[in-house]
Amino acid sequence: MGRSDEGNNTNVKPSYIAGIDLGGTNIVAGLVKPDGTVLRTLKKPTQSELGSGHVLKTMGEMVKELLDIEGASLDDLLAAGVGLPGFIDPTAGVVRLAGNLGWSDVAVAAPLSAILRTPVYIDNDVRSFTYGEATTGAAAGFEHVLGIMLGTGLASGMVNVGRLYYGSGFTAGEFGHIRMDGVPFACGCGMTGCLETVASATGLVRQVRAQLAAGRESILAGLAGGETSAIRAADVSRAYDLGDALAVEIMDFTGRTLGKALSYAVTLYGPDAIVIGGGASLAGERLLAPMREELKRMVHPLYWERLTIVPAMRLDEAGIVGSAMFALHRLQD
Amino acid sequence: MGRSDEGNNTNVKPSYIAGIDLGGTNIVAGLVKPDGTVLRTLKKPTQSELGSGHVLKTMGEMVKELLDIEGASLDDLLAAGVGLPGFIDPTAGVVRLAGNLGWSDVAVAAPLSAILRTPVYIDNDVRSFTYGEATTGAAAGFEHVLGIMLGTGLASGMVNVGRLYYGSGFTAGEFGHIRMDGVPFACGCGMTGCLETVASATGLVRQVRAQLAAGRESILAGLAGGETSAIRAADVSRAYDLGDALAVEIMDFTGRTLGKALSYAVTLYGPDAIVIGGGASLAGERLLAPMREELKRMVHPLYWERLTIVPAMRLDEAGIVGSAMFALHRLQD
Repeated sequence: MGRSDEGNNTNVKPSYIAGIDLGGTNIVAGLVKPDGTVLRTLKKPTQSELGSGHVLKTMGEMVKELLDIEGASLDDLLAAGVGLPGFIDPTAGVVRLAGNLGWSDVAVAAPLSAILRTPVYIDNDVRSFTYGEATTGAAAGFEHVLGIMLGTGLASGMVNVGRLYYGSGFTAGEFGHIRMDGVPFACGCGMTGCLETVASATGLVRQVRAQLAAGRESILAGLAGGETSAIRAADVSRAYDLGDALAVEIMDFTGRTLGKALSYAVTLYGPDAIVIGGGASLAGERLLAPMREELKRMVHPLYWERLTIVPAMRLDEAGIVGSAMFALHRLQD
Repeated sequence: MGRSDEGNNTNVKPSYIAGIDLGGTNIVAGLVKPDGTVLRTLKKPTQSELGSGHVLKTMGEMVKELLDIEGASLDDLLAAGVGLPGFIDPTAGVVRLAGNLGWSDVAVAAPLSAILRTPVYIDNDVRSFTYGEATTGAAAGFEHVLGIMLGTGLASGMVNVGRLYYGSGFTAGEFGHIRMDGVPFACGCGMTGCLETVASATGLVRQVRAQLAAGRESILAGLAGGETSAIRAADVSRAYDLGDALAVEIMDFTGRTLGKALSYAVTLYGPDAIVIGGGASLAGERLLAPMREELKRMVHPLYWERLTIVPAMRLDEAGIVGSAMFALHRLQD
């Protein structure tokens, strides 16, 4: 990028962009340089139960604290970006619905802009993640990037030649809510068989519990003294490594189901790169090998041949960098 | 639109855009006004066996003939657009692969531009169709338009806020080559189970033939003296209207399979309108009723509620208008 270097000299103070990852549990804020380098991050509890005003104030204080530590001030802040899960209207700067924060129709960009005295841009966290990975992350250099976030849930973002894809009312890309054959689970969204009921951290655990409840044998049954509510996605990976048949079967089914759904996304979007992030992607090849195999089987070679699949570069910082880069580039539009 | 009206007076000659629909059998060329009105069309055999030079020459002559009839000349031509099936590189103006013309890597924009002494733009015919319907057709006024062409084959285009969606290497939207569960047919593309092997004019007929070959009873068996190779898609509609069980079953299965695949496209693209054209769409509600029902069942209400499904306004002229409008707007970019 190198924008920050142009004309830099000792008389010019460095410029910063704030990137904020606003989650239901924690707020992670970072100070980012225009080239995408993360200088410093801070984490604080969200405490959404104290209201949106409190959360906005906390975000403002975190950015000021980060600037203080750098010996800088609000005058050195070029812009700020916020990414959060939910239905976001990036044009209005308003959170339409964020279930994990309990917010509906909460303005974020305008009040935070007043606190920070700088332009603020907000977007869905998966779009921020995809934007960050496409501009300065694992998919930098690719023009058509499909971002897949395998976290507690599953969602996607799509960047084409530097622009995020939104669709009508910013609704495009609810990849986790594609309904798949052979998936029997009820989804929080009200439908049944949604992809994210299996392809996510909670989805892996849901499958283990359902199979154990049906009397299936597995070393996962003995975990935490038989308390299946204590099972985590990471445990499924550990059981897989120990050769546990149920864990292997679930990873294989999940990977294949994800690969099949990706074949629809690849055929419709025509990406040249898929970048996969989120906590559940830590399952790595256990999940990604069957996913790739099924995707290759399901798409025309025309697509497969031009496709690169990469893990996210910055599992923790992708949201911060993405939000910051999105804000910087919106500023320069 | 009304662009043509600005400053019009008797001293200003009218301006035209040529729109050309280049098919394997026929070339249909039309003279279009900047507001999308088709003034006049001409049809001539493509004769692709005589080589691409001949086809280019024919297209040039057709446009000149249309202008002649209008009492106009090449000086009155603002631009020309060509839509044709196949893999097209609209940026280079080159046909990468057009199976029905037997063309690979044939430059079209540059030589036709030399013949017509005006800028020429080319694109895939389904994209031209979608662009025409989204700008001045059945989906005018909608910002996110998914175009579905149910013809001999099946393909899609997507227009977002006036821009066609292309993806990497212009490969996005090969909707007909999504592989569907429960579809057993080999596809011309080399894969098996592609959506277009059932959801297309040839697909309807393919299903009839397969069922008759398997000994299934139907009034379609007696058609044309039992010569099943003479069965056409329109015959399936006629049999449906006579209550033929096989025809009803095939329309229902085809509509549902199409609706299911559309649920993937709707979730990923987030359109506010779907416009359906092509010869096989003449089956109308026989096909579209089960399609809608399945699509509604398969997508989140969030998508369904903001979605309008419309038949194409101009079955024959959509390609001409789309190519012309695409050329006009590229010119004004």
